[in-house]
Amino acid sequence: MRFSLSPKDTSFYDLFSDQSQHLVKGSALLTQVLGADTSAREDLARQMKDAEHAADESTHEIMRKVNSSFITPFDREDIYSLASNLDDCMDHMESAVDRIVLYQIGQLPAGVASQVEVLVRMSELTAEAMPRLRSMKDLAEYWIEINRLENQGDQVYRRLLAELFDGDLKATAILKLKDVVEGLEHAIDAFETVAHTVESIAVKES
Amino acid sequence: MRFSLSPKDTSFYDLFSDQSQHLVKGSALLTQVLGADTSAREDLARQMKDAEHAADESTHEIMRKVNSSFITPFDREDIYSLASNLDDCMDHMESAVDRIVLYQIGQLPAGVASQVEVLVRMSELTAEAMPRLRSMKDLAEYWIEINRLENQGDQVYRRLLAELFDGDLKATAILKLKDVVEGLEHAIDAFETVAHTVESIAVKES
Amino acid sequence: MRFSLSPKDTSFYDLFSDQSQHLVKGSALLTQVLGADTSAREDLARQMKDAEHAADESTHEIMRKVNSSFITPFDREDIYSLASNLDDCMDHMESAVDRIVLYQIGQLPAGVASQVEVLVRMSELTAEAMPRLRSMKDLAEYWIEINRLENQGDQVYRRLLAELFDGDLKATAILKLKDVVEGLEHAIDAFETVAHTVESIAVKES
Repeated sequence: MRFSLSPKDTSFYDLFSDQSQHLVKGSALLTQVLGADTSAREDLARQMKDAEHAADESTHEIMRKVNSSFITPFDREDIYSLASNLDDCMDHMESAVDRIVLYQIGQLPAGVASQVEVLVRMSELTAEAMPRLRSMKDLAEYWIEINRLENQGDQVYRRLLAELFDGDLKATAILKLKDVVEGLEHAIDAFETVAHTVESIAVKES
Repeated sequence: MRFSLSPKDTSFYDLFSDQSQHLVKGSALLTQVLGADTSAREDLARQMKDAEHAADESTHEIMRKVNSSFITPFDREDIYSLASNLDDCMDHMESAVDRIVLYQIGQLPAGVASQVEVLVRMSELTAEAMPRLRSMKDLAEYWIEINRLENQGDQVYRRLLAELFDGDLKATAILKLKDVVEGLEHAIDAFETVAHTVESIAVKES
Repeated sequence: MRFSLSPKDTSFYDLFSDQSQHLVKGSALLTQVLGADTSAREDLARQMKDAEHAADESTHEIMRKVNSSFITPFDREDIYSLASNLDDCMDHMESAVDRIVLYQIGQLPAGVASQVEVLVRMSELTAEAMPRLRSMKDLAEYWIEINRLENQGDQVYRRLLAELFDGDLKATAILKLKDVVEGLEHAIDAFETVAHTVESIAVKES
């Protein structure tokens, strides 16, 4: 059984919700990058960098709050892990966009759009789940769906690599695309890590 | 000092033993894949997929049990970590088999057989160690031997990459084999993570 | 509030300081490797292997001490994590040196020297921070600077890959250098993981 929380502690939930909103923004920018031309991509990469800085700010705010709070709604180290894990999702998405621009990649294979769709859905689900940390209710459906999406992303990723290896691109073009595709796969895995942390918090607090 | 456990709690040990038996099965299938031809490999990949689903089922059973148990033999989050880590071993082995089939790889280099031998030994040692969680006795020899095997696997892995890079395969063939070889290295690392988790549990409970 | 510690427990701080000194040694050897010719590199790789064994010994000493101590200065599992994370830094640096020798790489790109400078600075900062675990004071400046260096290392890493992909090296030469560069990036990430663990310990103990 958990005690009802004072208003002060409550705002950890708001901070996690804020942090997850940056992920929704990040995955939306990723979607735009796919359809954009080179110069538009540079502008989107700058917006992505800004979104990543904003997410960093949210993360640090949570860390400062953990340090200065006498009572926390769940274990300090779990708050810390969850904030770090959410931050990792953003870092991997930003990194993928940066590489697309840096390597001057043109048209991306169709499978990349499927990866990004998985990321959009994962970020929405994560943003919807964060406020439910307050009651610790209805979280199982969130992590089950994230696990399902991660599996789907994994299938897409394997097939994308097979396509790249058997296509007629030259080796350096394959390496560039592989780097982007792996970056997106890491982002997908990072969302699954967030879900694992949420599951592990729920297991402890139940 | 730890309290003697009721029969209900005891069965966590049985569940971890079950989960580790799937890894023994998985590493045996991996061994068969090496010597098989293309069509036999597709059948083995299906069996591997089934073994992975069975391992998933064991993992979820442990998670459900953690959620519904009032008393657990050791910390809830450690049970959770151990179950997840064991699951990762299976995922990486299944992924390696899937890639061998997906990339239509023919003959695999000799070093791959050495990697698979390490995995077979690791899965046997892990399956033998799981029942010993009950007494927390004689576990050090398990994690020391796993660490030794991981080192050995690492040497094999580095030499395999050097061979691939200096051979006369074309770039895409190298990339395909590198992906399989890395997948097996990740599986080896995942077994070491299991051993680390067991060591960390033993450190806490001692 | 934390209790004052008995002399016996105090020595955990000395052990962590010892362990971090091996990292200073390792990053200095890495610097020497960059400027050395092939035969000198083989000798340096042997020294690196020795340094890694010495670091392993320090790690095991900490683990044994955790196992045999009734009271520890902070949570057993955190001591365990910190020792493992420090060990990972050494493993990745050693692995990078081994690969440079194994792949018989000649001149390394300039960006690699920038990566190694980051590692030298990170190892110095880590060695300076370890004794401050005793008071838990002035640690924030350490992890903030490590995070900044990790970001800097990440920029260098991305630009290095872009250069490799757009240069006129043949595919296998690119793959070899990519493997070394990734190894150094993993070492940089491992130092950041150490800083995260220190931050998470400080958060709990504050």
